[in-house]
Amino acid sequence: MISAETRGVFAIAPTPFMPGGALDVASLGRMTERYAGYGVDGLTILGIMGEAQKLEPEESLAVVREVVAHAGSLPVVVGVSAPGFAAMKRLSNAAMEMGAAGVMMTPPAAMRTDDQIAGWFAQAVAQIGTDVPFVLQDHPTATGVVMSTNVIRRVVEENPSCVMLKHEDWPGLEKISTIRRWQKQGDMRDLSILCGNGALFLDLEMGRGADGAMTGYAFPEMLRRVVDLAPRDRDAAQDIFDAHLPLLRYEHQPGVGLAVRKRILARRGFIAHADLRAPDAPCSEAACAEIDYLLERLAARDPGCGL
Amino acid sequence: MISAETRGVFAIAPTPFMPGGALDVASLGRMTERYAGYGVDGLTILGIMGEAQKLEPEESLAVVREVVAHAGSLPVVVGVSAPGFAAMKRLSNAAMEMGAAGVMMTPPAAMRTDDQIAGWFAQAVAQIGTDVPFVLQDHPTATGVVMSTNVIRRVVEENPSCVMLKHEDWPGLEKISTIRRWQKQGDMRDLSILCGNGALFLDLEMGRGADGAMTGYAFPEMLRRVVDLAPRDRDAAQDIFDAHLPLLRYEHQPGVGLAVRKRILARRGFIAHADLRAPDAPCSEAACAEIDYLLERLAARDPGCGL
Amino acid sequence: MISAETRGVFAIAPTPFMPGGALDVASLGRMTERYAGYGVDGLTILGIMGEAQKLEPEESLAVVREVVAHAGSLPVVVGVSAPGFAAMKRLSNAAMEMGAAGVMMTPPAAMRTDDQIAGWFAQAVAQIGTDVPFVLQDHPTATGVVMSTNVIRRVVEENPSCVMLKHEDWPGLEKISTIRRWQKQGDMRDLSILCGNGALFLDLEMGRGADGAMTGYAFPEMLRRVVDLAPRDRDAAQDIFDAHLPLLRYEHQPGVGLAVRKRILARRGFIAHADLRAPDAPCSEAACAEIDYLLERLAARDPGCGL
Amino acid sequence: MISAETRGVFAIAPTPFMPGGALDVASLGRMTERYAGYGVDGLTILGIMGEAQKLEPEESLAVVREVVAHAGSLPVVVGVSAPGFAAMKRLSNAAMEMGAAGVMMTPPAAMRTDDQIAGWFAQAVAQIGTDVPFVLQDHPTATGVVMSTNVIRRVVEENPSCVMLKHEDWPGLEKISTIRRWQKQGDMRDLSILCGNGALFLDLEMGRGADGAMTGYAFPEMLRRVVDLAPRDRDAAQDIFDAHLPLLRYEHQPGVGLAVRKRILARRGFIAHADLRAPDAPCSEAACAEIDYLLERLAARDPGCGL
Repeated sequence: MISAETRGVFAIAPTPFMPGGALDVASLGRMTERYAGYGVDGLTILGIMGEAQKLEPEESLAVVREVVAHAGSLPVVVGVSAPGFAAMKRLSNAAMEMGAAGVMMTPPAAMRTDDQIAGWFAQAVAQIGTDVPFVLQDHPTATGVVMSTNVIRRVVEENPSCVMLKHEDWPGLEKISTIRRWQKQGDMRDLSILCGNGALFLDLEMGRGADGAMTGYAFPEMLRRVVDLAPRDRDAAQDIFDAHLPLLRYEHQPGVGLAVRKRILARRGFIAHADLRAPDAPCSEAACAEIDYLLERLAARDPGCGL
Repeated sequence: MISAETRGVFAIAPTPFMPGGALDVASLGRMTERYAGYGVDGLTILGIMGEAQKLEPEESLAVVREVVAHAGSLPVVVGVSAPGFAAMKRLSNAAMEMGAAGVMMTPPAAMRTDDQIAGWFAQAVAQIGTDVPFVLQDHPTATGVVMSTNVIRRVVEENPSCVMLKHEDWPGLEKISTIRRWQKQGDMRDLSILCGNGALFLDLEMGRGADGAMTGYAFPEMLRRVVDLAPRDRDAAQDIFDAHLPLLRYEHQPGVGLAVRKRILARRGFIAHADLRAPDAPCSEAACAEIDYLLERLAARDPGCGL
Repeated sequence: MISAETRGVFAIAPTPFMPGGALDVASLGRMTERYAGYGVDGLTILGIMGEAQKLEPEESLAVVREVVAHAGSLPVVVGVSAPGFAAMKRLSNAAMEMGAAGVMMTPPAAMRTDDQIAGWFAQAVAQIGTDVPFVLQDHPTATGVVMSTNVIRRVVEENPSCVMLKHEDWPGLEKISTIRRWQKQGDMRDLSILCGNGALFLDLEMGRGADGAMTGYAFPEMLRRVVDLAPRDRDAAQDIFDAHLPLLRYEHQPGVGLAVRKRILARRGFIAHADLRAPDAPCSEAACAEIDYLLERLAARDPGCGL
Repeated sequence: MISAETRGVFAIAPTPFMPGGALDVASLGRMTERYAGYGVDGLTILGIMGEAQKLEPEESLAVVREVVAHAGSLPVVVGVSAPGFAAMKRLSNAAMEMGAAGVMMTPPAAMRTDDQIAGWFAQAVAQIGTDVPFVLQDHPTATGVVMSTNVIRRVVEENPSCVMLKHEDWPGLEKISTIRRWQKQGDMRDLSILCGNGALFLDLEMGRGADGAMTGYAFPEMLRRVVDLAPRDRDAAQDIFDAHLPLLRYEHQPGVGLAVRKRILARRGFIAHADLRAPDAPCSEAACAEIDYLLERLAARDPGCGL
């Protein structure tokens, strides 16, 4: 189970598809083992980057089943956000029964005021059960839901099962500092903070007090080293981060970024095909050339990271 | 099958639930027969007012099955909008096999430009099949997707299976006039236009050239008479409409309006319980008193419409 | 000065323009006197319906000067919302010096969380001065800013100069009930609540505890009678309200509604021309015919209100 | 005058303020000369990063007057976007009279459909005059207005005075490729494309066919070298770009990024004070330390760019 003490690197895993759009079940196991091989501390599946909203309910369950089966002792967090509570409850229950380590939730776009957001989480927790540890995802760029640090604290305080913040507001550095200050002052209980946003600010987020990364950048070994080095050798961590930043920034484009990520993961052998399910398209020819160029330069700057 | 010649009154039916939140299958048949008894020309299910996004896939299928089974020769339109195409395809296929007369679709909120909207419909039609007649729902207040008359025309021209516009932009009167003018000039092919928005402008929409109503106001007999009378006795149609307007406006409140509608439908015996599925709540005590007051006044002005 | 005890009818006055788009200064005085003649308790100018954002700063000042000059003892509230605080401060200062009775403010669309909204009001009040009584405008349909009753209470408690709520959330009836309950319990201080939204729910808002109306419906005599009668003869108030509802609903269309209102006010002699400043257009021919029809019917149902 | 042949580097200049919030007129001249000293091809003022919406009309005119006076032969583009056409017309007329080389415009957030966007530009051009060359700003992250390449082409074709695209959609690389392909095929007339978005993709935008940069990154000498080198030595350009990317990304944070930029520009002597006008705040202490760290590392990687 994830807890407020969880730290390190959780890789956000994509959902692999066959060229025709069918779920690529065979890739799920291989992908899970590849992530494990790079030393991640856990996996997160069925998030926004997992094309979760394009899956049928039984496909979602298949993804959970396969990934958990191959993850061994690695904790697996399952994204369960959905427009309706019935679907969230069913996926959460099934995932936990299958051995998931927790779930991740974020409210729908219509939630605007603090009371709406806190009320939504209260209802969601009542549905999935107060014993299921959950990750509060704060990702306004993708969801349109804007959460102040005060409302995050309120959700954390009102729901003991909230054990982790997936931090991906942009900008968001001050949010980490505020939460850590409150905790130091005794004004907020413990909470794990893992950072998303494609790792675009991971270097600095570690300095602000984050516990690690939860994101899907196609080179988890970079996340691993930056998270490990940051507390003891800032410059070394920054050197590695900087080497990856040109590509990382390219992968972090809204919408098209997932095609970039899947292309690289396919070339690295994590998944068999780079395909996305409709309506999303693969990388254009020009984009492919840009990726190749950035990969080449990356290999020169961080030699372990070539293809 | 619905077609570009379809006209009259299609009632938007709610999805009945038991007090605990379970699907109230027994009410589905009774409700369908009650609507039929009021002389509607068809039914529309699983729309926004059908709490469609709160249903599990198999529940949606149960709703279609029951309603179609009790609808006799009445055409049933099934709302299939969903965040992903896989879910849309499956529900559409299943519904048509069960005997639905067509489906209704509207794009997700992220669709902004004309090209995005037209592209989304092209892909959706490719998924559900070009032989399935569909209703284009234009409802920006609920969806956030704003469609110009030009993009509506484009979707209609690019997709022969688009046979109907569910017109519920607000304001929207000029849209009907523009489409009808284009059609008269030979610049756009035939298209049925049925009006939604809780019927708030039905009186005037008929004068602009609408073919009828597709909405869920709890007194379908009002819709029936206004649609029938409008072409031949405007004043008589307007008198009936005006008698209902105070209540109709009350039912047409975003969010809470559905609880109002279900309360009235429950009291009228269409459904057994007024319950909504979480997170939506029933009417407050004050709201119940207001509804009673408005119903009383309605009964005085349109004697057939008492409880 | 307006205060937490202010009640009754404040007419939202439009800004009259000449056919070419120039400010119609001559109409300002006449319009003010006409409103006064209908017994309103105050006037509100430079709101959304006053096309405030289309005015140059010196034009805004001219509007304030003229209206205040002709308003006699009637209090005049001036809308000062603007993208920047500098403009708000200048207009507020100038308006108060000219004799305005208070200002009205609402935050820009970017304000989302409770803290952002409360912070914005704190800064705005610091700019305009803590001695200027202000109206908190809660109008999400127009502004995109969603305020819970809790954040409204917070703004009221944090800013003693907040004396009035312009209530125009939709739906909004429960908000009035909540605030009045809090006040009865001693959990919130006194506050005047005047209702907007084109008066679409004025009948029921009075029953929930509103102090009156602040809206621009083209027949202020209806607002006057409904507000006066509601506490002592609900049915009589409702009869008058119902007679106006078909037209009132027509005037309350987003965007085009202002052209409807100006057309009627021009025909009633409040203003010389129905023109709006670009990019807004006058009523279409079909709309004009609809207005005429609704006016005719209104004259039959509420004989004092003919043209 | 700017034209469809304009290329190179246009620096987006901030508006300098005194600590108390007053316009810092003295800094305007110095800043302009500093930009000129770094070899920029032009300046753009009163954009989003120029805090334009916080300025009083006469302050805007003062900024134009001072910058044009010190810019010598450098063309100055003036942002004139405003909620109302009256303000746009006046600022545009005044700026062109004072010697501006063109204006920059983007529609308000309410513009959604292609017809709304094209209609808005048609009206805006009618207001400012068809002889004023203008820059179409495509910046959905900041404005909420999403423009397809088709609607951009339409605006360009319908308005001969549209001579430049300020390209800052995110993602936006394919937009450049599409426009350049259309132009090559003869399906679209010539148009200058300068790139914004804080230069986050400038390296790749040049490869897609952009004509240069129009952005406010605090080291214009980087923009200068990347734009110059890109066509003839891609690797060299990329090396320079990569050296700046960690800082550039930091400066490109929505909202707080401007405080970062002003802090650096103040330290570099472009402006006297780093202050922003309310409601915006200066960098936090932690942010200042991060900036210092990134600047130090930049100085090591691109020695000309130290403080």
